[in-house]
Amino acid sequence: MDQIIRTASREDMPKVLELIKELAHFEREPDQVEVTVDQLIKDGFDGHPDFRCFIGEINNKIEGMALVYMRYSTWKGKVLHLEDLIVSKAMRGVGLGTKLLDHVIKYGYDLGVKRIGWEVLDWNEDAIKFYEKKGAKIMRDWDVVQLDEAGIKTYISNL
Amino acid sequence: MDQIIRTASREDMPKVLELIKELAHFEREPDQVEVTVDQLIKDGFDGHPDFRCFIGEINNKIEGMALVYMRYSTWKGKVLHLEDLIVSKAMRGVGLGTKLLDHVIKYGYDLGVKRIGWEVLDWNEDAIKFYEKKGAKIMRDWDVVQLDEAGIKTYISNL
Repeated sequence: MDQIIRTASREDMPKVLELIKELAHFEREPDQVEVTVDQLIKDGFDGHPDFRCFIGEINNKIEGMALVYMRYSTWKGKVLHLEDLIVSKAMRGVGLGTKLLDHVIKYGYDLGVKRIGWEVLDWNEDAIKFYEKKGAKIMRDWDVVQLDEAGIKTYISNL
Repeated sequence: MDQIIRTASREDMPKVLELIKELAHFEREPDQVEVTVDQLIKDGFDGHPDFRCFIGEINNKIEGMALVYMRYSTWKGKVLHLEDLIVSKAMRGVGLGTKLLDHVIKYGYDLGVKRIGWEVLDWNEDAIKFYEKKGAKIMRDWDVVQLDEAGIKTYISNL
């Protein structure tokens, strides 16, 4: 199978959104995706882009993507964050995820960042094993905290 | 006690770095802070800043800070991330942390973001209780994954 990794263009965003929705379904949160194709194009390709997206193709068909952006660590300075790494269900296990991760790590290395981070569901053992094999540390004592849109409104109304 | 919250300026960065180091000590990682005052000034105030910092003062003395930046959720679009919220040990429990968090949530609300997120150590029960009381959800099934500088180099050398 002919696999290539390339930087995404605006035209890829409909397929990227399909992959995002497929992952949300896998993560048992199918109704949480509010982002639209137009928003992805505007945010990722206009002015100062909010993210950078890489596409994984197999035989000229988009089967995976990785989406990254910079974060700021008060310990390390600029660090790279991998928000999503998705391979279509039909094409898992053929090495495209590894190629996408390789590309992301190379991208961060070329930028000279001191850390590349992401998040993983603690029940996603295949992903955890894959990341650990690659040398990443699973920081099990750190939890993600989120105040959602309704939570923000309630917070503000209580001020 | 007279408490005010304001946006940080370049001149505040030496004191901000002191607070960062104090927190790293509390988190049992005192040697992990590599960032310098010059780097904070360059990254936070030149060109397109990598973060925004708010200062908490008590009686005209800097006793706390909150540091935020934008992230990109493939579900929600632009979201605000709170990287650090620090109050000096001497001034814990007098309400400055709440005022800083209020300021951050208002800032995110004014930006119209659909989510504000941060991370917490799972053994920091006081912080977890504080955040839950404020309506935030602790996503215990999400773990933070990090590939550090040495890990990046090893990864690249194995490609």
